[in-house]
Parts: sequence; C-alpha cells; structure tokens
Amino acid sequence: MDFKQELKNLKGAISGELERQFSKEIAKTLKEDPIMADALVQAKKIALSGGKRIRGALLCWAYFAVGGREKKKILKAAAAIELVHLFLLAHDDIIDRGKSRHGQKTLNVFFADEKIAGKDAEHFGNSMAIIGGDMLYAMANRIIAEAGFGGDIAAKVLANLQSVVATTIIGQSQDIAIAYEKNVTEEQVLSMYRNKTARYTFEGPLHMGAKLAGCNNRKVFKAFSAYAVPLGIAFQIQDDILGVFGDAKKIGKSNASDIEEGKQSLLVVKARERGNRRQKKILGDILGKKNIGRNEIEAFRNILKETGSLDYALETARKNFKKGRRAMEKAVILPNAKEFFFGLVDYLEKRNV
Amino acid sequence: MDFKQELKNLKGAISGELERQFSKEIAKTLKEDPIMADALVQAKKIALSGGKRIRGALLCWAYFAVGGREKKKILKAAAAIELVHLFLLAHDDIIDRGKSRHGQKTLNVFFADEKIAGKDAEHFGNSMAIIGGDMLYAMANRIIAEAGFGGDIAAKVLANLQSVVATTIIGQSQDIAIAYEKNVTEEQVLSMYRNKTARYTFEGPLHMGAKLAGCNNRKVFKAFSAYAVPLGIAFQIQDDILGVFGDAKKIGKSNASDIEEGKQSLLVVKARERGNRRQKKILGDILGKKNIGRNEIEAFRNILKETGSLDYALETARKNFKKGRRAMEKAVILPNAKEFFFGLVDYLEKRNV
Repeated sequence: MDFKQELKNLKGAISGELERQFSKEIAKTLKEDPIMADALVQAKKIALSGGKRIRGALLCWAYFAVGGREKKKILKAAAAIELVHLFLLAHDDIIDRGKSRHGQKTLNVFFADEKIAGKDAEHFGNSMAIIGGDMLYAMANRIIAEAGFGGDIAAKVLANLQSVVATTIIGQSQDIAIAYEKNVTEEQVLSMYRNKTARYTFEGPLHMGAKLAGCNNRKVFKAFSAYAVPLGIAFQIQDDILGVFGDAKKIGKSNASDIEEGKQSLLVVKARERGNRRQKKILGDILGKKNIGRNEIEAFRNILKETGSLDYALETARKNFKKGRRAMEKAVILPNAKEFFFGLVDYLEKRNV
Repeated sequence: MDFKQELKNLKGAISGELERQFSKEIAKTLKEDPIMADALVQAKKIALSGGKRIRGALLCWAYFAVGGREKKKILKAAAAIELVHLFLLAHDDIIDRGKSRHGQKTLNVFFADEKIAGKDAEHFGNSMAIIGGDMLYAMANRIIAEAGFGGDIAAKVLANLQSVVATTIIGQSQDIAIAYEKNVTEEQVLSMYRNKTARYTFEGPLHMGAKLAGCNNRKVFKAFSAYAVPLGIAFQIQDDILGVFGDAKKIGKSNASDIEEGKQSLLVVKARERGNRRQKKILGDILGKKNIGRNEIEAFRNILKETGSLDYALETARKNFKKGRRAMEKAVILPNAKEFFFGLVDYLEKRNV
C-alpha cells in the first residue's frame, strides 16, 4: 500500500462528504437566520482549508479492518467525526484565544466585528463561536444517527462518541486548570495528553469504526487501544515541538502562539524541572507574554535545547511510536488495514506539519 | 386529574432520575479531574434548586398519550431532555452574562474565581462554563442512546433531538443578533420565540416522547405541533412579562436583569413602535444600562404600560393559549393525556413564576 496516496484519497473523499453535509446544512439554516448560516460558511472554510483527516481515516480503516464494506456510509461517519473535531476546536479557540486555523479566521475572531457589536465585539465573537460549535456537534450526532447503519449500531456508536467527547472535555478541563498552575508535573501533562488527544484523536475513531462494522470482539478493541494511546501521546508531544520549532507557514499558526498562550507542554514542564535558576527565569518571563518577537522565540527555544527538554520530548515521542507499532503487530485484523496502521505510524513519526 | 399534583409527582420523579445520573457522572469524573467534577456538582445544584420540568413532563405525557408504558425508561429520557436544557442554559448564561439560576451561581460565575485565575477570572469562568455545557449535552445524548428503547427508536429520537437543538441554536443566534440591532420588528421577535422557545420547549419534547413510544402516525405529530407552537410563544411572552413585572424572589432573578441585558422582547419592540418621542427616549436610555435602580425599573414599567405594550403582550399571549387549547381539542390521543395537556395550558396561563 502506498500509504500517502491512500491517505490522500481518503482525505479527498472525506472532504467531499464534509462539503456536501455543510452545503445542505447551510442551505437549511439560511432560510431561518443568515448569521448562523455565516458561522457554518466560515466553519466549512476552516474545515476545507486544511487538516489531515486522521480521525476520519482511522475510523474508516478500523471499519475495513474488521470486515466493513460500505464505503459510502462509513464516509458519512468519518465526516461526522471530523465535525466533532471542528466543534471542539471552535470552543478551544475561544478558551485559548486562537486567531487562525489553517490560515482562516477562527469563528470567535470572524465574528468579533465592531461594526455589529461595537465595544462588545469580542463577546459577540465568543458568543457566536459557542453556539456555532454547538451546532457542529448537533450536526455530527445527527449524521451518525441517520447514516443508515441500523439503529442498534447507530445507538451504540453514538453512546461511544459521547463518552469520547466527555473524556476530551475532561482533558480540556485539565488543560485549562494546568494553565493557571505553577508547578505542573510531567504526570499531569501526560494524563491530559491521554484524555485530550490519545483517546479522542486515536482510540475513539478506531473503536467507533470497528463498532460501525458490527464488531463485538473485545480483543480487537483492546488491540486498538494499545496502539492508539501511545500513538496519541507521541502525536501530541510532536505537536508541541512543531508548535515552537516547526515551519509556521506549513502549520498555519505562528511559532509564538503556543508560547504566548502559556501552554504547559511536556517541553515546558521538563525545561522547568531541569533548568537552573537563570533558565527558569527566562522561561517564566517569556511564557504567557503577549506579542513576543523573534528574539524571544529564539531565547525560549534555546532554553528548551540547553536543558535537554527538547531531546527528552523527542525521545519520549520515539518510545511511544515504537510502543504503538508493537501493539499493532499483535492485533488480529485484516492485513491491508494493518498495513495502513503501520504506515500511519511511519508517516506521523516523520511529519513536519 | 389533579394537574398540579400530577406535575409535582412527575417533577419529583424526573428530579430523582437527574440526581442519579449526575451522581454517577460526578463519581466517574472525579477520578480524572476534580475541576470538571466541580462543574458537574454545581450544575446538579442548579438543576435541583428549581425548574418546572415542563420539557420532561411533556415528553413523558406524549409517550403515555400514544400508548407508551415503561415509566422507568421514559423518566431517563425526561432527565436527558432536562440535561439538554441545562446545557443550553450554561451557554446562554455566558452569552447573556447571567449570574444566577434558581438562586444558585451560574457556571460562568461559579468559576470566575480570582484565586485561581487572577485577572483572567472572567475568562476562566466562561471557559469552564463552555466545556461544562458541552459535557451536559454529551451526557444527555448518551442517556438516550443507553436508555433501553431499542436501537431504531433511540437513533430516530437522537436525530430528532439534534434537530431540536439546531433549531434552538438558530433561535439563540437570532436573539444575539437582535440584541445588537436598533429597529427590531415584531415579526423578528416572534420568529425568534418560535425557534428558541416553542419548538424547543414544547414541540421537541412532545415529538420525542411520541417517537419513544414507537408512534409513526403523522397526524399525532401534526396535532402536537399545532398545540406546541402557540403555547410556546405564549409562554415566552409571559416569561418576558414576568421578567420585568414578576416577583423577583419567586422567579429567582432580579427584575433589572432583562432590562440591563438589553433584551429585545415583544414588550420592548411594541413600546418602541407605539411610543412617542419622550417615551422612546426613556426606553432607549434605560434598556441595556448597567446597575439600574428601582426608579429606573419603575420608569421602564410605566413606558410599557402607557404605550399599551403590556396590554398588547398580554392579549397576544391569551390568543396563543386559546389557539393551543383548540388544537388539543382536535388531537386523537389517549384521553388522560389530553387532560394533562389541557391542564398545562390552564396552569401556564395562570402562572406567576
């Protein structure tokens, strides 16, 4: 299997389905309220301007892995899981004061319009992004309920999805709380990564995909979890590294944004743990500061390098990728799916975006 | 049927189910994250401190009306619809800067804690209320998926619920936009009432209840809609009247809050339409002003009375109650349910809370 080609094809198909679902919903909404229709137009723009569709692709291949064959239906569910992602991002962007996604304005910024709301522009932007996100979640649930998998499967998968969302929210809550804490531990950060990323981006879609194919085999779910959780942790650590050291254009956000936001990543926690007084002072001064420049980003990067924090994070990611690979070796699923899941580990390990 | 006694019994049973569901979720969440558990504890407190459980009661009686008999299961669905309500209120309270519900702190105020977040307290409060609301929505969906109605029914009802939520959000979006507009029309306000209240509080629960009993009879759904929509509009108009003229202690919020929030109710729109220059000026000066006192509330009330706006609103509510009653006369459903639905119109028409 040419993994990249397969991911590209799948991405195209999922994006096509997303486009169809958005267009239908926008037409319906436009009859009632042009502003909410605008929110959906902007959400569609964000959705179609980027994203790797990893969640959707995992869901599809977990479905194929246990014998699922109805591609049209599974693409609907894949589009739904991507909508759940957009819903969570819309709310995340309010919380983290995010300004852009894939080069497009976030919903909160898109609606922070002084012409409509004057001094209250930021509040208006946040308000629209709250209910815009809610709308995307409702869309996602409805698509799964109506995708034609049969009631028993749909109900089971919807129950699963709600648990995944609940776990992600708990991870998000841990993330919010951590941002206001001073002495965050590695354990706290990893627990947050597990809830906020690993279960949500990797384990959830895999379990849902297998359930959509009618799979009841507990061993399959266990194997998917053993693969998904380390992969998700590695993915999140990489994300943090790319956020500070990556190519801002490719990632679609500035290298300053994680730092300005005061993000308590494994990188930061480790640098604080290992840094001397001077290094900790510089770290503390820059982290969470607004409108930082190139020199400050560079100084911040140097601390992460000097303290060995960057190496530690890279090594932790590497170990977790290996763990995921090993778990997949033991999984009893169809061989072409296995090939896809191995290909994903290689692809993620080498990514720079 | 003693309507009040029946509503009271049902309210007790639904509240009991809500309490059970919250306790389970809190215990589960506590293992992962004490802060999100706190959010659920506060949401539970709000839920159990008041509320008429109209949505839950309507859902139960629509289920009974077409032959549904499994009381234990339908109470779970009723608790779920009340959780959807709590989810929407949590987000509404951020948007409207609401401070209290049933005498309890709203989630956004509960978490706006300077000890944790310093100057960022308000943002922290809003952030926790956003994801706290999301959590309640996920809970509601999961409860319906797992209530034991069978997959086909659960999937159909969940799809219905998502449409109801989407409609409510559109109403909410209309509401937000209206708040920033200057010349709002009666038609705009009534369309918002239809989406935000009538479909959501009355029609949605009735349709879902009938579907949960396996009903497919289009005439039943049409009759429920014909009853629900005018009833919902009348209910919302009453709510606006009570917000300004009602007993603040009974309602659980100050008579100033709707005015301070700048709420563009039918009352306000009509007073603006009918008022002379002086009256319009007073109205404009007070509406949306913060920290108003007794004199300003009294002046505001006088404008609503002098312009005939209060009478117009009372009359519009009365007409819509009548319309709802007539629609119910024609409905072909079980007689004791019909009795309940008539009782509800009488009860709502006389309410002062």
